[in-house]
Amino acid sequence: MQESRSKTSGEVAALTGGRLVGPDNLVLTGVASLDEATATDVSFLGNEKYRAQVLPSRAGVVLVPEDFAEPPPQGRAWIVSKNASAVFAKVVQVFAPPPVVFPPGRHPAAVVDPTATVPGSVHVGACAVVEAGAVIGEGTVLAAGCYIGHDARIGANCLIYPSVSVRERCRLGDRVIIHCNSTIGSDGFGYIPGPTGHTKIPQVGIVQIDDDVEIGANVTVDRARFGRTWIKRGTKIDNLVQVAHNVVIGEHCFVIAQVGISGSTRIGRGVVLWGQAGLAGHLNIGDGAMVMAQCGVPKDVPAGAHVVGSPAMDRREFVRTLTVPKQLEKLKNTVKELQSTVAELKKKLDAGS
Amino acid sequence: MQESRSKTSGEVAALTGGRLVGPDNLVLTGVASLDEATATDVSFLGNEKYRAQVLPSRAGVVLVPEDFAEPPPQGRAWIVSKNASAVFAKVVQVFAPPPVVFPPGRHPAAVVDPTATVPGSVHVGACAVVEAGAVIGEGTVLAAGCYIGHDARIGANCLIYPSVSVRERCRLGDRVIIHCNSTIGSDGFGYIPGPTGHTKIPQVGIVQIDDDVEIGANVTVDRARFGRTWIKRGTKIDNLVQVAHNVVIGEHCFVIAQVGISGSTRIGRGVVLWGQAGLAGHLNIGDGAMVMAQCGVPKDVPAGAHVVGSPAMDRREFVRTLTVPKQLEKLKNTVKELQSTVAELKKKLDAGS
Amino acid sequence: MQESRSKTSGEVAALTGGRLVGPDNLVLTGVASLDEATATDVSFLGNEKYRAQVLPSRAGVVLVPEDFAEPPPQGRAWIVSKNASAVFAKVVQVFAPPPVVFPPGRHPAAVVDPTATVPGSVHVGACAVVEAGAVIGEGTVLAAGCYIGHDARIGANCLIYPSVSVRERCRLGDRVIIHCNSTIGSDGFGYIPGPTGHTKIPQVGIVQIDDDVEIGANVTVDRARFGRTWIKRGTKIDNLVQVAHNVVIGEHCFVIAQVGISGSTRIGRGVVLWGQAGLAGHLNIGDGAMVMAQCGVPKDVPAGAHVVGSPAMDRREFVRTLTVPKQLEKLKNTVKELQSTVAELKKKLDAGS
Repeated sequence: MQESRSKTSGEVAALTGGRLVGPDNLVLTGVASLDEATATDVSFLGNEKYRAQVLPSRAGVVLVPEDFAEPPPQGRAWIVSKNASAVFAKVVQVFAPPPVVFPPGRHPAAVVDPTATVPGSVHVGACAVVEAGAVIGEGTVLAAGCYIGHDARIGANCLIYPSVSVRERCRLGDRVIIHCNSTIGSDGFGYIPGPTGHTKIPQVGIVQIDDDVEIGANVTVDRARFGRTWIKRGTKIDNLVQVAHNVVIGEHCFVIAQVGISGSTRIGRGVVLWGQAGLAGHLNIGDGAMVMAQCGVPKDVPAGAHVVGSPAMDRREFVRTLTVPKQLEKLKNTVKELQSTVAELKKKLDAGS
Repeated sequence: MQESRSKTSGEVAALTGGRLVGPDNLVLTGVASLDEATATDVSFLGNEKYRAQVLPSRAGVVLVPEDFAEPPPQGRAWIVSKNASAVFAKVVQVFAPPPVVFPPGRHPAAVVDPTATVPGSVHVGACAVVEAGAVIGEGTVLAAGCYIGHDARIGANCLIYPSVSVRERCRLGDRVIIHCNSTIGSDGFGYIPGPTGHTKIPQVGIVQIDDDVEIGANVTVDRARFGRTWIKRGTKIDNLVQVAHNVVIGEHCFVIAQVGISGSTRIGRGVVLWGQAGLAGHLNIGDGAMVMAQCGVPKDVPAGAHVVGSPAMDRREFVRTLTVPKQLEKLKNTVKELQSTVAELKKKLDAGS
Repeated sequence: MQESRSKTSGEVAALTGGRLVGPDNLVLTGVASLDEATATDVSFLGNEKYRAQVLPSRAGVVLVPEDFAEPPPQGRAWIVSKNASAVFAKVVQVFAPPPVVFPPGRHPAAVVDPTATVPGSVHVGACAVVEAGAVIGEGTVLAAGCYIGHDARIGANCLIYPSVSVRERCRLGDRVIIHCNSTIGSDGFGYIPGPTGHTKIPQVGIVQIDDDVEIGANVTVDRARFGRTWIKRGTKIDNLVQVAHNVVIGEHCFVIAQVGISGSTRIGRGVVLWGQAGLAGHLNIGDGAMVMAQCGVPKDVPAGAHVVGSPAMDRREFVRTLTVPKQLEKLKNTVKELQSTVAELKKKLDAGS
């Protein structure tokens, strides 16, 4: 797939530190999955599910784990290593096209308010808009068409992709990455309801995003009613996730695509929320908890717990609920047998009396 | 959290109309939640869940309800009032930083077609684009980077945030707010299917959004196949919601984040759709109905009904389904006892005969 | 709803090839749904659900199927045809306002890198940005404010709506349509997890989108870890859908709003994924399979299968699970009767012994 530099199988093996099985002079120019690879590609067995694809694959070289016993067919080679997946990441980089460079400086079509602080090391792309009072850290990239609101603070070496909006007064740490079309700091959803109209509750807080957080594409993070919505250091958020006002997400969490987190819920450290899970408001999710895909969480989750289902329950309980139809079928049969037995007894008894 | 003006506890009490318990000379400079507050913050007890946090909080002043009996610790104060939550909204405003002002006039980097009607009272931000024939009402804000399509009509005093797209011919009433990256008037999803290709059905209708509607960030509202997709007066829509073509949403509804509403479904007045709920197409959802989080609605919902689950069912029925595993366990035990009884009877009868 | 040209009922009937029942001189100026139509509108009965609305409708003309026996009331007319829905599409076009035209050429406020290839037949809207090395096909429309990344390739006659981002090196075929605020080519969600920080796995692949694909608004399609995320010819994707890295979607699929597809999952030809369904990673979904709304798919789905529920199961199995509470209720009654019978037998036996 990738245009790239060429390497031999021997060179790739040396680079990975793995053990080469097969010829060292195969010419390789790219990487591909097992089923898409051709003779000039390196591929890898990273998921047991694909083990049966290694031999039929046309990949010139395959990175395999140490327990992979089969020899390579004629004209192909294996590189055996402890962690094929991690090693493969290195190989990918060798053949990868050079990453896009966003050079320091302002594009002539960038629009930076004169009261904003934007060092010369910052890239400001075409049609990017930086409002009054915003402060941008050294080395940050504000890609084309992104929007940085009034008095917002963006740390150093951040990467803000096209069409991202960071609204007024929000604060980002260093090395934060935000992908295209995400919205940081939209108003929280707060109204005083009334039958003839709902009154908007002003949302005067901010969003604070700490160092090394990465936020996917088309994510929404609402500003706090007051105080802050807060995403702590190192947390990674996938695409199309909703983070409501005053939510706090702890350090080093994973939040997978399309998760929704309701207002004021607090999530501990190292929590994993799988895709499309939904969390009610004002909950505490303990450190290291895991919430499975599509789970609906109506109450607190203790640290380390592993919940499934909608409404959420303990994993073992959930597995039991899945067997309910079978258990019921079995019980019906038991009851049917019992009915026969009882009918016979009755007959006997009636006959005998 | 907020930089702000300073007030005394006495001044804040006067402002709220509440009863001060404790010193009137505490200096306050901001607002914060109970667990984040410091001695110069006002906080509040708005949700019973946090009652136990009032005493341990470091907040200088806490707004408490009338039934809160405990006296404040040394150097702190309560303000007692009927509706702590509503009163707190006022206090938040006092300490809030001044809102961003979008002054009337066109930024030099705004792009307004000469045939568009844009009064001088309108703010048009940098890189906002207003296409031919569009008509914008007095006092409306078109923030940086938003897009108003051909012949679209936007009412007065609307607030259209950055990167919002309103496509051709759509019509917004007055005081409509649309948050960043939302799409109004994308084509409805309509095709005549075929095994060798699906034929697109032109979507020539519009979206009509009435007065006082607020739409969150990254929301999609598709234009009608013909006629209009229609969101009526006062309805509030949260982030990442999907509204398909020809949907009608009645007045004063709440649609929480990540809800999906399929084509031609009609939603009554005052309906609440909780987060991640999904509604099939061509349904009628009656006035005042409530659809709970993650609910999947395959058929009409009567006015005032309260539905849960996927597929949706009445709340009481849903609660019953949740107890099925326990009921089954109990029934199994009953059957086991019955089996013993029958076995004994059989033995007796066999012995006796 | 639509301003339009005027036609008589006779002219409309001729145009549709249908049989006119009623006067041929009714003046018609637009189209509307049965319940919104007025005397100058054409409407249609396209869904059996609305049959009872035909007579009470005020529509001047209604397109009805051949089995619609009732005569039209005074001053109204029917047009009878085999496929009212398809015929109506034609009628809609007659009364539709002319579509927006995006003329060839670059808006003065467009920003096109001098190394990009953009033929004169391409429309580049205001504030659209085309980065270095990008190649755009003949007749394509790059609407206002969209972003085409470095070395991206867009085919001929594509329609890229405002605020769409297509990141570096992604490749689109011909006649591809992408609606507002969608993101093509954001980084896949890949990290090597660690308790003190997750290491980002570079995502150096691309997204490839083949001819005649249409992608809704606010959709996210992540670039591959390596190789490509691939959406094949003719597939139609609705709004707010998530397509993770290395996913392959076959030809002519339908993916309805808010679906989430996890990494490396492969979807066959002609598959339909209904709204809010979620698919785990590394799955194979066979040709022609159908995954119902809100379904959670944890494992492979065979070709032609029809799965429902979370976790997904065969449609018939799912229907059975829905009847579990009723079956349980029935079984409880059976057991209760059995208990009475047994109690009587016991009494009898005790009395007799």
